[in-house]
Amino acid sequence: MTKKINRIGVMTSGGDAPGMNAAIRAVVRSCAYYNIECIGFKRGFEGIIDGDYMTLNARSVRNVINHGGTFLKSARCPEFKTKEGREKAAANLKAAKVDALILIGGDGTFRGGLALSKEHDIPVLGVPGTIDNDIFGTNFTIGYDTALNTVLGAVDKIRDTASSHNRLFFVEVMGRDAGFIALNSGIGSGAEEILIPEENLGLDRLLNSLERSRRSGKTSSIVIVSEGDKIGKNVFELAEYVKENLPYYDAKVTVLGHIQRGGSPTCFDRVLASRLCVKAVELILDGKRDIMVGTIKNKIQACELEKALKGKPSINKDLLRISDILSV
Amino acid sequence: MTKKINRIGVMTSGGDAPGMNAAIRAVVRSCAYYNIECIGFKRGFEGIIDGDYMTLNARSVRNVINHGGTFLKSARCPEFKTKEGREKAAANLKAAKVDALILIGGDGTFRGGLALSKEHDIPVLGVPGTIDNDIFGTNFTIGYDTALNTVLGAVDKIRDTASSHNRLFFVEVMGRDAGFIALNSGIGSGAEEILIPEENLGLDRLLNSLERSRRSGKTSSIVIVSEGDKIGKNVFELAEYVKENLPYYDAKVTVLGHIQRGGSPTCFDRVLASRLCVKAVELILDGKRDIMVGTIKNKIQACELEKALKGKPSINKDLLRISDILSV
Amino acid sequence: MTKKINRIGVMTSGGDAPGMNAAIRAVVRSCAYYNIECIGFKRGFEGIIDGDYMTLNARSVRNVINHGGTFLKSARCPEFKTKEGREKAAANLKAAKVDALILIGGDGTFRGGLALSKEHDIPVLGVPGTIDNDIFGTNFTIGYDTALNTVLGAVDKIRDTASSHNRLFFVEVMGRDAGFIALNSGIGSGAEEILIPEENLGLDRLLNSLERSRRSGKTSSIVIVSEGDKIGKNVFELAEYVKENLPYYDAKVTVLGHIQRGGSPTCFDRVLASRLCVKAVELILDGKRDIMVGTIKNKIQACELEKALKGKPSINKDLLRISDILSV
Amino acid sequence: MTKKINRIGVMTSGGDAPGMNAAIRAVVRSCAYYNIECIGFKRGFEGIIDGDYMTLNARSVRNVINHGGTFLKSARCPEFKTKEGREKAAANLKAAKVDALILIGGDGTFRGGLALSKEHDIPVLGVPGTIDNDIFGTNFTIGYDTALNTVLGAVDKIRDTASSHNRLFFVEVMGRDAGFIALNSGIGSGAEEILIPEENLGLDRLLNSLERSRRSGKTSSIVIVSEGDKIGKNVFELAEYVKENLPYYDAKVTVLGHIQRGGSPTCFDRVLASRLCVKAVELILDGKRDIMVGTIKNKIQACELEKALKGKPSINKDLLRISDILSV
Repeated sequence: MTKKINRIGVMTSGGDAPGMNAAIRAVVRSCAYYNIECIGFKRGFEGIIDGDYMTLNARSVRNVINHGGTFLKSARCPEFKTKEGREKAAANLKAAKVDALILIGGDGTFRGGLALSKEHDIPVLGVPGTIDNDIFGTNFTIGYDTALNTVLGAVDKIRDTASSHNRLFFVEVMGRDAGFIALNSGIGSGAEEILIPEENLGLDRLLNSLERSRRSGKTSSIVIVSEGDKIGKNVFELAEYVKENLPYYDAKVTVLGHIQRGGSPTCFDRVLASRLCVKAVELILDGKRDIMVGTIKNKIQACELEKALKGKPSINKDLLRISDILSV
Repeated sequence: MTKKINRIGVMTSGGDAPGMNAAIRAVVRSCAYYNIECIGFKRGFEGIIDGDYMTLNARSVRNVINHGGTFLKSARCPEFKTKEGREKAAANLKAAKVDALILIGGDGTFRGGLALSKEHDIPVLGVPGTIDNDIFGTNFTIGYDTALNTVLGAVDKIRDTASSHNRLFFVEVMGRDAGFIALNSGIGSGAEEILIPEENLGLDRLLNSLERSRRSGKTSSIVIVSEGDKIGKNVFELAEYVKENLPYYDAKVTVLGHIQRGGSPTCFDRVLASRLCVKAVELILDGKRDIMVGTIKNKIQACELEKALKGKPSINKDLLRISDILSV
Repeated sequence: MTKKINRIGVMTSGGDAPGMNAAIRAVVRSCAYYNIECIGFKRGFEGIIDGDYMTLNARSVRNVINHGGTFLKSARCPEFKTKEGREKAAANLKAAKVDALILIGGDGTFRGGLALSKEHDIPVLGVPGTIDNDIFGTNFTIGYDTALNTVLGAVDKIRDTASSHNRLFFVEVMGRDAGFIALNSGIGSGAEEILIPEENLGLDRLLNSLERSRRSGKTSSIVIVSEGDKIGKNVFELAEYVKENLPYYDAKVTVLGHIQRGGSPTCFDRVLASRLCVKAVELILDGKRDIMVGTIKNKIQACELEKALKGKPSINKDLLRISDILSV
Repeated sequence: MTKKINRIGVMTSGGDAPGMNAAIRAVVRSCAYYNIECIGFKRGFEGIIDGDYMTLNARSVRNVINHGGTFLKSARCPEFKTKEGREKAAANLKAAKVDALILIGGDGTFRGGLALSKEHDIPVLGVPGTIDNDIFGTNFTIGYDTALNTVLGAVDKIRDTASSHNRLFFVEVMGRDAGFIALNSGIGSGAEEILIPEENLGLDRLLNSLERSRRSGKTSSIVIVSEGDKIGKNVFELAEYVKENLPYYDAKVTVLGHIQRGGSPTCFDRVLASRLCVKAVELILDGKRDIMVGTIKNKIQACELEKALKGKPSINKDLLRISDILSV
């Protein structure tokens, strides 16, 4: 028989992502709607270990839906990776009478949560929040759409100056080992070439493509490089390599960096966060545990955390073909 | 046997939408990639009737992907609704040696195109471009995501002042007879109530909901009203009605209007436009005609124009429930 | 001899303006820097009458500099216009041991503050915060630059659709009885005509100008209309009048409304708010009272509140001439 | 006696800046208004040497006021620094019947133009366009205000993640040898410390300031570093140095780079560009030459190019004091 749920804990962990506040809000408001108590732990697992939490009611989350970052703060917590750390956390969760824990974060967060659930019988439920979109079991993660648009805003600005000066720009974007951000922002920004870790096309192809661009009359070009790219050179070496081989190019580098993690979330991310977290609370009330909520083909669906952690989401390789056609 | 395609015509028609330039670019670049000629007609069907067109090559569409509006311009064309108008258009298309015509627009555009195809045997292919998202046969139309974010940007600003002054705001958004914009921007902006044409909840419910909000400690509120709302009052009458019945509310009205049609397209809209239009050209080369390309469950798919024109896309009513929960 | 200042009160009043939070922050931080206590009254004079205030220390204002609105909230307070209201307020200020009061707002706010100072010997100091820029004694008010850019963002979007459809748009902007917003946003947005209360050019001139525009080959046009315009017609009547007299124009209207009051403040407004409010605190410590801080020719300067209330800032009429030249 | 002006040339040169298009537009429209011909040279002096120009009429500059970059393109031109290069340029200018040349750019551009004027008697007039604001003879250069707001938008996003993770960020901004961008964006973004070339405060002060911040309860901090900072370490070395000395800080670095050069210009920059360039054309018609137009204390004024090139604009050091107070 399922235990009655009286109180839900919520936390954000790992790299922060725009929409995390919208997600927390949806958890808190859903709890209020269903007359359950809700408490928020600060700085992810670190706050659980430290017993650092706050009671959250419907009014605690007013005017946060449009703010980037996470007001519960986030952290990576090495201590939680130890058995002792998790024991401390479990003791604090029980002392705080938390019947289930909602984890907003990426796969590191889910892995930690699952260990907690198995070792200490604390039901957990994962909500995918990361700009990298690298979680299996959902087509989109919270924060990814915002990051894409932040990259686009930056590359549009770079294009202004690239095109005024007939320059070639290498722009490095985030994404860890996944090329989602690079691939989609590359098409969205009309980049001439997109370098992603999933598809090592080699340096020759890059040179050929840039030469072709130039011959076809292009006077400026943008190359989007994923931070996890496996081409064997970092973005600065890449620019040097191109300058040596195609000396007519005045190649510049921009590393977009942490601006990609911030900013007011897009409508897509706010709605996604809202839908996922209403569902998360409802699934907990329904006795479910150790699962992740995601969106598959526009539908909110759950999958087992274990499965989510084993799988690897695949990029749509047809987008590389489309990028090729459009940079003709 | 299918006729060989040497030249494709492209036009934008109906209300303009952000991403139309990205769509034209993708048509033009795909033609260049496949070594087909491409010409662009100005002002939709009006330009065809007037024989007003321009040759488009790969370089003609440089630096347009990030611009709102449509450089081919758009218009509503009453003359094209007459048989004589369409005859003139067909003659001009044949004189210009156009083997197939790509129509970027909404259902009015598709209806006109289909008539042209049937009466004069000119293959047409539709690409859904409208901020209203009211086209059957695709989950998303080009421009819709941008419009949602434009609405959000505006409502976030209104919330700043609403919350500073403890006010109630009625914000009217576009969408013709469909509540897509209202519903999603309503959830995204954290609106207290969303009024859409698909679901007439009645004035009593609105009053009850606002009273409940106030009692729960809310000091400011936003109500999103779709322009096609069927509640029997326009947005100004609605505000008056609420002021009379809930006199403690200082209710204000903002009609967002045509700002919703402009602006630089979001990443989602640029990628969607790119994918749909590459596919559109490839389908034409593949001998297809009288179809519309769309995205269904994240996949690019085609459906017959006839079917697209008969169907009516349905909103996700679960979102109303979610809105209810989140405005607790 | 000047009384020693131990505690300063701060409030925002009247229409809210972006940058008010940056202003409050600068007051609070300056107090902390000079080891003075600071308390913030909620909802302007209303909060003083109700005794509704909060203690503010340096950490109370973290992460507010970039937020629109005012976290102290604002209100118009009819009760404060009565002698009894001000007596209540004065009693509460004395009970709260407030040695001086900083008023962030417009001339209504300053008038109220000055009465309080004269009747009850409470030193006040005004900081001009309003989007309308209609305060004498300063070249710029806090919020004005942000409002200009908000208008520009909106008109740029409208231009996308105006230009796609060859349309004429009438856009009404705020400004009460002053044309500052209309004049500068009109030039900034490249409007064809700008209608402001300070200069009634008459309807004939508008028609002539639009006809000239059309003859010179313009296919779309924007007319910016100040809400306080004295041309004898509101913006909707104006559009009708033009449609009747120049029937080839498809004229549309957009009233920008309250989006102009919100949004994250620009750099100019944040720096202005910071500079004015550091100076405000320092002037109080210096024994000054009943003055307003402003910026004149890029310098922070003080003027007597009495003088500020009597004067009327004048627009730069040369800008009308420039607008004329540029819309050729 | 002054020669009659029949044709004016215009060009943009040096690093591009937002608002250059608005400036070109104002030159072109002013010429049209005064019935003078206008031609635009491409890529600055390079286009003059190559004889690469286009005729510009009032309609050539439609819908460019809101676009970043410069449609005339820009370049640095080593050949023009030689006597031979300038001779070629002068010959081309005379062949093209250019009676005077308007130079939109920075001091390198002005230096080149002045040489041209002296050696070949071609009247030139400078308009200050650079994001760095490092031109003597004007309080503001075109593009500076936009760059400030671009930096603010980026730092606001970084603050979201800094504050979510309790991190310290070093953000490098542009400005060449001048600290204008760093100083004003530093105050606008609420930075804890601002490092500029004009004031080397030393590394000890930085450490002290960060320690003080931490002790006062701050959990995250932003340090703005001007690219021309003379502290003896680049931004990456600086972060390392801080990490070694204040090990509790998780310091990260972001180099904003070329995004600062692009983007739609702000209202301030569009109005400034418009006012300066109307005046520039009028001064030429008035027989003036070898001067630069600028804005001093809100007034459009001219100064001799020679003087502008000798002077060095000074930053407002009071802003450093204000930054100190506000980061308490």
